[in-house]
Amino acid sequence: MSETTSETAYEGIRSLRERAAALDAVDPLAARRDLFALDDGVVYLDGNSLGALPAHVPARVADVVQRQWGELRIRSWTESGWWTAPERIGDRIAPLVGAAPGQVVVADSTSVNVFKAVVAGVRLVGDPRRTDVVVDATTFPTDGYVAESAARLTGHRIVPVDPADPAALRAALGPTTAVVLLNHVDFRSGRLHDLPALTAAVHDAGAVVVWDLCHSAGALPVGLDAHGVDLAVGCTYKYLNGGPGSPAFLYVAEHHQAAFDSPLPGWNSHADPFAMSRDYAAVDGARRGRVGTPDILSMLALEAALDVWEGVTIEDVRAKSLALTDFFLRCVAEYAGGSSVTSVTPAEHAARGSQVALRCGQAPAVMDRLIAHGVVGDLRRPDLLRFGFAPLYVRYADAERAAAVLAEVLTEARA
Amino acid sequence: MSETTSETAYEGIRSLRERAAALDAVDPLAARRDLFALDDGVVYLDGNSLGALPAHVPARVADVVQRQWGELRIRSWTESGWWTAPERIGDRIAPLVGAAPGQVVVADSTSVNVFKAVVAGVRLVGDPRRTDVVVDATTFPTDGYVAESAARLTGHRIVPVDPADPAALRAALGPTTAVVLLNHVDFRSGRLHDLPALTAAVHDAGAVVVWDLCHSAGALPVGLDAHGVDLAVGCTYKYLNGGPGSPAFLYVAEHHQAAFDSPLPGWNSHADPFAMSRDYAAVDGARRGRVGTPDILSMLALEAALDVWEGVTIEDVRAKSLALTDFFLRCVAEYAGGSSVTSVTPAEHAARGSQVALRCGQAPAVMDRLIAHGVVGDLRRPDLLRFGFAPLYVRYADAERAAAVLAEVLTEARA
Repeated sequence: MSETTSETAYEGIRSLRERAAALDAVDPLAARRDLFALDDGVVYLDGNSLGALPAHVPARVADVVQRQWGELRIRSWTESGWWTAPERIGDRIAPLVGAAPGQVVVADSTSVNVFKAVVAGVRLVGDPRRTDVVVDATTFPTDGYVAESAARLTGHRIVPVDPADPAALRAALGPTTAVVLLNHVDFRSGRLHDLPALTAAVHDAGAVVVWDLCHSAGALPVGLDAHGVDLAVGCTYKYLNGGPGSPAFLYVAEHHQAAFDSPLPGWNSHADPFAMSRDYAAVDGARRGRVGTPDILSMLALEAALDVWEGVTIEDVRAKSLALTDFFLRCVAEYAGGSSVTSVTPAEHAARGSQVALRCGQAPAVMDRLIAHGVVGDLRRPDLLRFGFAPLYVRYADAERAAAVLAEVLTEARA
Repeated sequence: MSETTSETAYEGIRSLRERAAALDAVDPLAARRDLFALDDGVVYLDGNSLGALPAHVPARVADVVQRQWGELRIRSWTESGWWTAPERIGDRIAPLVGAAPGQVVVADSTSVNVFKAVVAGVRLVGDPRRTDVVVDATTFPTDGYVAESAARLTGHRIVPVDPADPAALRAALGPTTAVVLLNHVDFRSGRLHDLPALTAAVHDAGAVVVWDLCHSAGALPVGLDAHGVDLAVGCTYKYLNGGPGSPAFLYVAEHHQAAFDSPLPGWNSHADPFAMSRDYAAVDGARRGRVGTPDILSMLALEAALDVWEGVTIEDVRAKSLALTDFFLRCVAEYAGGSSVTSVTPAEHAARGSQVALRCGQAPAVMDRLIAHGVVGDLRRPDLLRFGFAPLYVRYADAERAAAVLAEVLTEARA
């Protein structure tokens, strides 16, 4: 960092840096950061891809490996609660997404859960005249691929829509709609879609909605029960900090559970799994979404990680998320306002998730430089810099520093 | 243990116990036991359900959690090799099941892999006149449930067969057979089926075979390539000691890979996953069996666990497995010959896996007592005591002690 560059880029820094310090000083979530293994030398704005490590998790995982597996071995399936972990941990996630107990199960990957939800969704509808599976055209790719596969197997057709245009979405819905698969927050732009209104529109059309909550669970209120969502899926390694590839979750609204007909009826969803019966009989409740033997190490790391949510309300998290992203956008405008970056994340709070995506020339090189300078975001090809703001551990000071370093890197890039 | 009971039950113990010690002294695999976290107070004969903990795994998992996740965070997807783990670890398993590199991928649960294999199998066949999915009638239940679901989605019908009766199996095969799903070793009886002959019979009928290797991978030679197997699945938490619920594997023979059309085409199997393309284009090779983000903690525990196989041949493992189960059966005959236990595991080597299943009155109570006396097997309802012999860490002395304690428990039960 040369003196000259700093002088230019850091113009106005005193006031915003002081403002950051003041905001951090009164942040009701500030102390949560101490629960995470973080290094003040790095500004970590990639918690929307991989959440940071809660500091108590290594000891819990070590206990799972050494005592539960190493000493108790097979007995841990009952004595250490391994067998019931998927529904127990589901109930820990449930309040964060506005679900009463008994409706969320942790199992498999998000992709596999999308498959369960779309196939089970069209079976819930059960009307051969409803031939369409409507899918967010800007969806995270796996949702689209898996929905296409599900539609192919069930004899449906895919209808792509842009959920950012509610009128277009409404126009696509009708008497031929079976299932609508939508993302709560767009993974590229960070746009938050209107879950209550879109769910109501899907229901008005007589169809079933599946929401993908990967980028909203743990970042903002979802209100699954309150808004009458039918089915939902989501990952646990972003804002829920479950660790790399920690298992995903599946929500099946209580009133759909008896008719939920999984295309992956593994033995873990049998009513009496240890009877080892030749005939399948589905268990009641959210457990019906289970398939095979759960990946216990990944699953119990997630369970431990969820401890950081004790005493936190998702409304407080949302308030900080909006304040943080507002502040970051302000810092970017002030420090790098003359440069070529433009935010593709909606400015209005009602349409913003917990990330900011900036469109930028030479984005790959800029992100490499940012990371080299200790500001970790990620790149969405070809031209988006993506910065995630995990309110449990990102500080206003981090937002300010990220914007300052970005301005410096952009100045270097122009030079 | 009363003196009287011991005197009765332990008749002849000197010679068999001495024989056990002699066998252990010359066992070429004896030193492998030191690689595991085992306690001499327990005879662990449930490695066919959950393999024991390799002693070096806790430190490796701690490094994955603390350094790879906690410090490197998102960078570990490339710098710690997370992204390529499924195919890298698949290549570690490949030699144990007789597969050349590039054909095995580690992903998801066995149940989910059965689904991929059966659906992709009928697509490989691609002949609408081939309407049948033939399934082992004594299969581990999840295989049957998932095959049924796959058949329902693809418009096929299930034809159950008894693979222990090769003539009946051959009779079920014909011009309407699409896919045949078989278990290499029956989970109840421990019967080893004739993979080379049955694979040839399936091929003679023009069909595709899917083998479930859960109870053979790591216990005996499989020879997937040598015998021209089309597709195979298996778990990694039994004889491969990957830890509770460690991810399963999927084998796709090289000549089928280009046509392998997965029903779960998640973004991890895309040719260019980070292009985040709306259209799916499958990657080449075994990676085509990947779906969503891999469960890294469970996956890398498995990778570490596979180190115990360095320098071991599966032929040596098989030789010890047969000698151990022979010896256990002999001890049971000698110590408990007058009791009501009968082995349902074939006596002939060619038809025996690496477990012994004993049919027994009051089996649940007997297993409880065995466990209380430090001999850990498991129960398969209603009347089977199941004892798994993992040749890397079970000793002849363990087999002898298990039989002696069993005789004592059976004597108590009669009293």
